[in-house]
Amino acid sequence: MPLGYFDDARREYVITTPDTPAPWINYLGTEDFFSLISHQAGGYCFYKDARLRRILRYRYNNVPTDLGGRYFYVRDGSDVWSPSFMPVKAPLDSFECRHGLGYTTITARRGGLSAELLFLVPIGHAAEIHRVTLTNEGPSDKELILFSLLEFCLWNAYDDATNLQRNLNTGEVEVEGSTIYHKTEYRERRNHFAFYHVNAKVLGCDTDRDTFLGRYNSFAMPEACEKGQSFGSTSSGGAPIASHSLSVRLRPGESKTLVFVLGYVENPEDEKWQSPGVIDKRRTRAMIDQLGSVDAVDQAMAQLSRHWTALLSRYELESGDPKLDRMVNLWNPYQCAVTFNLSRSASYFETGIGRGMGFRDSNQDLLGVVHLLPERARQRILDLASTQFEDGSVYHQYQPLTKRGNHDIGSGFNDDPLWLILGVSAYVKETGDIGILEERVPFDHDLDRSGTLFDHLTRSFNHVLERLGPHGLPLIGRADWNDCLNLNCFSTVPDESFQTTSNIDGATAESVLIAGMFVAIGTEYAELAALLRKPAEVERAQQAIERMTRDVLRSGYDGDWFLRAYDAKGNKVGSQENAEGRIYVEPQGFCVMAGIGVKEGLAARALDSVKELLDTRHGVVLLHPAYTSYHVELGEISSYPPGYKENGGVFCHNNPWIMIAETVIGRGDRAFAYYKKLAPAYLENIELHRTEPYVYAQMVAGKASPRHGEAKNSWLTGAAAWNYVAIAHYLLGIRPEHDGLRVAPCIDTEIGEFKVVRRCRGATYDIRVKNLRRGQSIKLVVDGRALDGTLVPYAAPGSTVIVECEA
Amino acid sequence: MPLGYFDDARREYVITTPDTPAPWINYLGTEDFFSLISHQAGGYCFYKDARLRRILRYRYNNVPTDLGGRYFYVRDGSDVWSPSFMPVKAPLDSFECRHGLGYTTITARRGGLSAELLFLVPIGHAAEIHRVTLTNEGPSDKELILFSLLEFCLWNAYDDATNLQRNLNTGEVEVEGSTIYHKTEYRERRNHFAFYHVNAKVLGCDTDRDTFLGRYNSFAMPEACEKGQSFGSTSSGGAPIASHSLSVRLRPGESKTLVFVLGYVENPEDEKWQSPGVIDKRRTRAMIDQLGSVDAVDQAMAQLSRHWTALLSRYELESGDPKLDRMVNLWNPYQCAVTFNLSRSASYFETGIGRGMGFRDSNQDLLGVVHLLPERARQRILDLASTQFEDGSVYHQYQPLTKRGNHDIGSGFNDDPLWLILGVSAYVKETGDIGILEERVPFDHDLDRSGTLFDHLTRSFNHVLERLGPHGLPLIGRADWNDCLNLNCFSTVPDESFQTTSNIDGATAESVLIAGMFVAIGTEYAELAALLRKPAEVERAQQAIERMTRDVLRSGYDGDWFLRAYDAKGNKVGSQENAEGRIYVEPQGFCVMAGIGVKEGLAARALDSVKELLDTRHGVVLLHPAYTSYHVELGEISSYPPGYKENGGVFCHNNPWIMIAETVIGRGDRAFAYYKKLAPAYLENIELHRTEPYVYAQMVAGKASPRHGEAKNSWLTGAAAWNYVAIAHYLLGIRPEHDGLRVAPCIDTEIGEFKVVRRCRGATYDIRVKNLRRGQSIKLVVDGRALDGTLVPYAAPGSTVIVECEA
Repeated sequence: MPLGYFDDARREYVITTPDTPAPWINYLGTEDFFSLISHQAGGYCFYKDARLRRILRYRYNNVPTDLGGRYFYVRDGSDVWSPSFMPVKAPLDSFECRHGLGYTTITARRGGLSAELLFLVPIGHAAEIHRVTLTNEGPSDKELILFSLLEFCLWNAYDDATNLQRNLNTGEVEVEGSTIYHKTEYRERRNHFAFYHVNAKVLGCDTDRDTFLGRYNSFAMPEACEKGQSFGSTSSGGAPIASHSLSVRLRPGESKTLVFVLGYVENPEDEKWQSPGVIDKRRTRAMIDQLGSVDAVDQAMAQLSRHWTALLSRYELESGDPKLDRMVNLWNPYQCAVTFNLSRSASYFETGIGRGMGFRDSNQDLLGVVHLLPERARQRILDLASTQFEDGSVYHQYQPLTKRGNHDIGSGFNDDPLWLILGVSAYVKETGDIGILEERVPFDHDLDRSGTLFDHLTRSFNHVLERLGPHGLPLIGRADWNDCLNLNCFSTVPDESFQTTSNIDGATAESVLIAGMFVAIGTEYAELAALLRKPAEVERAQQAIERMTRDVLRSGYDGDWFLRAYDAKGNKVGSQENAEGRIYVEPQGFCVMAGIGVKEGLAARALDSVKELLDTRHGVVLLHPAYTSYHVELGEISSYPPGYKENGGVFCHNNPWIMIAETVIGRGDRAFAYYKKLAPAYLENIELHRTEPYVYAQMVAGKASPRHGEAKNSWLTGAAAWNYVAIAHYLLGIRPEHDGLRVAPCIDTEIGEFKVVRRCRGATYDIRVKNLRRGQSIKLVVDGRALDGTLVPYAAPGSTVIVECEA
Repeated sequence: MPLGYFDDARREYVITTPDTPAPWINYLGTEDFFSLISHQAGGYCFYKDARLRRILRYRYNNVPTDLGGRYFYVRDGSDVWSPSFMPVKAPLDSFECRHGLGYTTITARRGGLSAELLFLVPIGHAAEIHRVTLTNEGPSDKELILFSLLEFCLWNAYDDATNLQRNLNTGEVEVEGSTIYHKTEYRERRNHFAFYHVNAKVLGCDTDRDTFLGRYNSFAMPEACEKGQSFGSTSSGGAPIASHSLSVRLRPGESKTLVFVLGYVENPEDEKWQSPGVIDKRRTRAMIDQLGSVDAVDQAMAQLSRHWTALLSRYELESGDPKLDRMVNLWNPYQCAVTFNLSRSASYFETGIGRGMGFRDSNQDLLGVVHLLPERARQRILDLASTQFEDGSVYHQYQPLTKRGNHDIGSGFNDDPLWLILGVSAYVKETGDIGILEERVPFDHDLDRSGTLFDHLTRSFNHVLERLGPHGLPLIGRADWNDCLNLNCFSTVPDESFQTTSNIDGATAESVLIAGMFVAIGTEYAELAALLRKPAEVERAQQAIERMTRDVLRSGYDGDWFLRAYDAKGNKVGSQENAEGRIYVEPQGFCVMAGIGVKEGLAARALDSVKELLDTRHGVVLLHPAYTSYHVELGEISSYPPGYKENGGVFCHNNPWIMIAETVIGRGDRAFAYYKKLAPAYLENIELHRTEPYVYAQMVAGKASPRHGEAKNSWLTGAAAWNYVAIAHYLLGIRPEHDGLRVAPCIDTEIGEFKVVRRCRGATYDIRVKNLRRGQSIKLVVDGRALDGTLVPYAAPGSTVIVECEA
C-alpha cells in the first residue's frame, strides 16, 4: 500500500497512514518563527534560533520516536484518542495528513467523530495557529472533552537538555482565563514569554507535566485524560506544560471549530510587568485579537497561499512529466526556501543545538532562493560577509539570533571564503543589484573595520592565492567542502574534534576541489570585477585562474580522473595509487564545471570514471572503494562505517555537480539519468528510502552499506539548492547571467518539449523548448527573431518576451 | 501506605511499590565502573567518566520519567510483563526492590511466576552482572520466553544527545553466540567496546532498536516481545541495542537462574582485531569466564559484603536510636562514598554531561571518606592538586577520565583553593600520613612545573591573602562556595553564564564567607606547617588569621549576624540594610566554626538570628527573605524563583555548618534538632519530600516556595560529607586530630548513652558515652585512667583503647 501521494493541484503531499518508516515532517514559518511538524503532529517551534529561543520541548532519538508535539486528546465517553494518532495510538477509522506550503492538516475519524487539525504559522506573526474542527458524523449526540497539550522548552534547548538539576527549579507559569503563559526566566534576564490560548471558555487547565500525566505515565494516556478532567495544576519548577480542557457538545452532523494560538511575545523592558510578578499582557491580547478566530485563520491561510504562489511563479515549468514539474515548480523550491531559512540548524536529524548557520552552507543555499527571496538573500549575504575576517577567512558557522561567529568551531576551512563569491554572484545575476557590491560590510562584526562587499570578495579570492601548497594547489586547512577530509588533524584520541584538533602546520596538504572551485568561482569573481569596471583586477584574476588551471592539469589529474588531494606528507588522495578511496566525486564535478580538461578530453574521461566506479542505482557515491579502516592521515572520512556519510555514501549535494558537469560536456541524457535517481518525485522504494518522499536527504547509504538506498538527514541539505540549480539552470538550461537570460537546455530527449515561464528582473520570459538533440546545438528565436547564441538580453520590466528554442 | 522501609539487619532500603514519587535510585560500583539503577531497573552505567565513556543510553527528563535501563520481558503465554514494572507496567501481584550496598534486587510476581533480578557491579571488574531467577509458583508447567534489553549509548554522552545526524551513521555491532558486542567507533580511535552476554543458549538476538521495538513503539511493548521472537536484526547505524531471547521451561516449583554480564573491555592497540573488522574477543571471554556463572555471582556478592563491612567498621555507633544508628553506620557513609566516587557528575538530576569532578566539591567530599577509603582519598588529593596553577588558583572542575581541568569553566572561584587545605588536613588527621605533604605535584598537569603538596597548600593560603578587598576581606572572584552569588558579573543577556561572563574588574566585591573559611581552614594550614616544623610559616599564618578575624569583626558583622559580602560597588549583601536577602546562612556557619565572635557573644547572637529568621520545619534556608526580582549586581542567586536553590532553598550542604557552629558554642540540643530535620531516616512526609528517603538531597524547597519541603537533586551533594562530619565528629564528637582522637560529644540528651567503636590509624577505640550535660563539660577515662582534656592519644596499631566519657 502506498504511504502517500502528491496532490499537485492542491500543492500538497498526502500521507495516508500514520505508519511511515520515519516521521515525515513539514516546516511552518517564513521569516522569524519556525516550526517542525510531523505527520503525527510531533515536533517543536522556535523564534529565530533553534538553540537559544526554543519554545516547545522535543526529545531527539526518543522511544517512541517523534514523541512531543502539539497534541489533542478527544475524550468521547470513556474512549480517548488523538486525531494525530500519536501519542495515544488508538486505531483510527481514517487518517490523512497533508503537508502543504507552510501549513499541515491532519484529519482522522474514530467512533463516528471526525477531527481536522490545521497547523500554520501566519505570515508576519511569531505564532503557531492550531485550528481544531470536530464533526459528529454519528447518529446521536456527543458530549466530548477536548484536551490540548504542549510541553515548553526552557528556552535554551542546550541547557534544557543538559542542566536538569537547575531546570527543575526555574519553571514558572501564569494562567488567566483560557490563556496559559510560560514565563520561565522572564523574571530575570529574558524579556520574552510564550502563551497558549484557545478562543473558548475552558473547563480547566494544567501547567504541571507530572500532575497532568500522572506518575510514570507517558503522553499516551495522561491521567487527566483518563479521569476526564484537568487538575488545575501549577508548575513551579518541574516541567511546565500548557493543557486546556474544553467541553464540546455536538448534535449529529454538527461541527465545532476551536482556534488555539501558541504565541511568542517580547515585551519592552519598561512594559514587562503589569504588577509585581505578573506579566503585562497587552501585547498578548493584541496578538490573540489578530489571530484567535476562524476568520483570522482563513485570512492567514489565504495570505500563505498568495505568498507561495507569488514566489513560485518566478520559474514555472510545463514539461509533460508530472514528476519533473512537481519537483521544479513546487517541492524543490519549497525545500530550497526552508533550507535557506534554517541552514542546517533544526530538522528531525539536526537537533538545533549543535549547529547554527553554516557559512559555506548558507552561501550555497542562496543559489536556490535568489529568485524567490531576493530581499532576504541580500540581507543574508551581508550577514554572512560580516563574519569574515580581514585576512579573508570566515567563521565556519554563526548563531542566527546573535549573527555572531561561533568561536567553538572557528575558521580555517579553506574553501569557505570562496562560497561567498558564488552566493553574491548568483544574487547579482538574478537581480542586477550591482549596488550590493559597494555596500560597506564590517569584518568580524567590528564596525570600526569594514570594507565594501566587493573588498570582502577580493579577500575571499586572495585567501586561496595566499595559501598555495607545494604543487601550486590550494592548501586545504581544516577541511574543504568535505568537512570529513581532515588532512591536518591526525587525531588518535576519542572525543577529539576531527576539525578543530590540529597537530600539523597545514603547509603541505592541498585540495584539488578548492582548485576546481577557484577556477569556477574565480571566474564569477572576475565577472563581478568587470561589472565594477576594474580591468586590472579582472586581468589579475584571470591570470591566477589560468595558472590554477595549469596546475590542476599538471598535478591534479591522475590518469582517468581528477585527484582529490595531497595529504600532509604529500601523498596522493583519491588516486589510482590508493587501495581504498581511489576516486572521489567532488573534484570530478567541480573541475569539469570549471571547464578544466574539457578541451583535452580529460573531463569526459573523468566523468566516465564516475559512471563506472561511483554510480549506483541510488546515485553517485562520494568515493570508492569505501575505507574499511581508520586512516589517521585522512581523518573523519575514514571514521564512518563503509557506505555511510562521506565514506562512500551517496551525497545528494554533489551529485548535481556531476549532473552539471555532464551538461558542460553536452551529455544531457546522462545528466537527467543522474537527476532522476535522486529526485524525490521519482523514488520507487519508499520503504527502503525511509525519509520523506517529497524532499531531498543529505545522504543515501552507499553501495558499501548493508542498507544501500536508505536515506538519512532529510530536508536541510545543500542538495536542495544544487539539485535545483542543476535541473533549472543547466538541464532545463535557463539561468540568469549578468547580461541576459541564458537559454541552453541540455536534457534527455525523454523531455521532448517543455515550456518555462521565467520572471526575472521584472520581465517575463515565456520560453518554449523543443528538445530534439540534447543540447548539442541550440537555436533561439526571441520575439520572432533568430538570436545569435543562447543569451537572451534582459527586457524592460513589465514586458513579456517570447523565446522559442530548438535544442 | 508506606512506600518503603529500612531493613537494618540486611543493610537495605526496601521499596514496596513501583509507584514512588520519583525514581529512587542506587549506585553500583566501587572504583572505575559505576551504575545508576532505579527501583524500576532504570538508569545507566559508565566507565570512569559519565560523559566520555557512557555505556548505556538514558534519557533525562523523559516522558515517562525513568525510561531506559536494563529491562527484562517475561512472555508467559500471551502475557508479557516486566519484573521491574517498567517498562511494560503490567500490574504485579507483588513487588519489592531492595537497594543494598552496591547491589539492587527487584522481586516481583505475576500469574504464578516469581522473578528475582539482582544487579551488581563486581569489585575489580568493569561490568554489571544481572542475575535473573524465575520460579514457577503455579500449579502447571510454564513455557516462557525471556527477553533482555539494553540500549547502548554511543560512548560520548554529550555527542550522543546532540549530534544525531552523525550518530545515525556510526552504530556497529557484532553477535557471536550468546554475546552481543557494541563496537561503535572501535574501528577508529576507540580501543574499547561493550558486550552483553548470557550464560545460556539463546533463541535469538536483536541489535537494532527500531526493528526490535517496531515503528513508533515504546519500550512498553516491543514488537519482538509481542510476537514472541527475536528478529535477528543487525544495527548498522541507527540505535544499537542488545536483546537476547531465551526459552525457559519450568515445572511447578522449579526455578531457573540466568546470569547476564554487561562488560566493558579495552583491548591494547595490537590486540584490537582477530581478523579484519572482527573484534579480538580473548579478554571478553576471560571476563565471561570469571563472572558469568551463579557461583561467580555468589562470590561477587560475598566480596561486596565483606568490602562494605570492613569500610563501615571504622566508625560504628550504638545509640539506642535506630534512626540515628542507620544514618551514622550505614546510609550516610554509603552516600559519602558514592558522592566521593562521582562528585556531582551523574545522578537522576545531574545528567553526567555538564559536570566533571568539582574541585571544591571533591575536597569537601573527602571529609566523609578519609576514614573509609584513605588510599583513594590520597590519590584524589594528588589529582585535585595537579589542577592547581602556580598562582594558587585552580580549575573549578576537571574531567574524571583525563583528570584535566575543564577550560570552559576555568578558575576564579576564590574560595576554591582553600578547600584543598581542608581536604588534605582531614586526610592527614585520619591517617597520620604526613609524607603526602612532601609529594611532588605538578601545576596544571605540567610535569616541568611542580612543587610539594605543601607548596600547593601555601599557594592556596596565599591566594586569599593576595586578593584582599577594601575592607581587608577576601575578594570573591566569580563566586565563592555559593556559585550563584555573582558579584562581578552584571549579566543582562539571557544565555550568558552567570559565572564566566564578567564585566567588572573584581577588585571590590568581598566575601565574608571566604574570610570565615580563611580563619577556619587557615588554622588547619598552620597546624600542617607545624607538623612539618616550619615555625616561621606557622607564625605568618597565625598573624594573617588574626588580622582576618579582626577585619571580620570590624567590617563583617552587621548587628545581629555576620554580613554575607560587599558587592562590586561596596554595598552590603546579607545585611539589615537590604530589603531582601537580609541574612545568609553561610557566614553564620563558617565564621562561628572558625571561632570568630565566640568570646564576644556575637557568634551566639548570629546563631540565634539563624534560628529566628532562617529555620523552618524542613531545615535552615539559605537566605531570607528570598529575592522576588532579579538583582543584576548579585547574579544567579536572584534568578531563581523564591524558595528554590540558592534563593532561599534549604541547602542541606550548609545546614551542618550551623549544626557544627552550635556545638562550637555548646548548644548540642539545637544542633541535634537541626540534624534531625534533614537526616533522611527521620523524614516523616515522604510524599512531599519525593526523593529517596535514605539519602540527602542537595536542596529542599524553602519557605518561600509553594512546594516547601519538596526535595531535589538527591544523592550527589556535599550534604553527605558535611552532615556526616557534623554528626560523627561534632555532635557525637569523635574526630581524629593530629595528636590524638578528640572525644567531645555535644548532642541533645535525648541521646543519653551511646557507644562508638572507632578504628583509626590501626588501633580500635571503644568509646562509651554518658551524655548528661550536652557537652557543657566533659570527663574522659581512658583505659581506666582519667584524662586531662578531651584528646585521647593515639595508641599503637593493633591495640584497643577503652574510653569512658561523661559529657
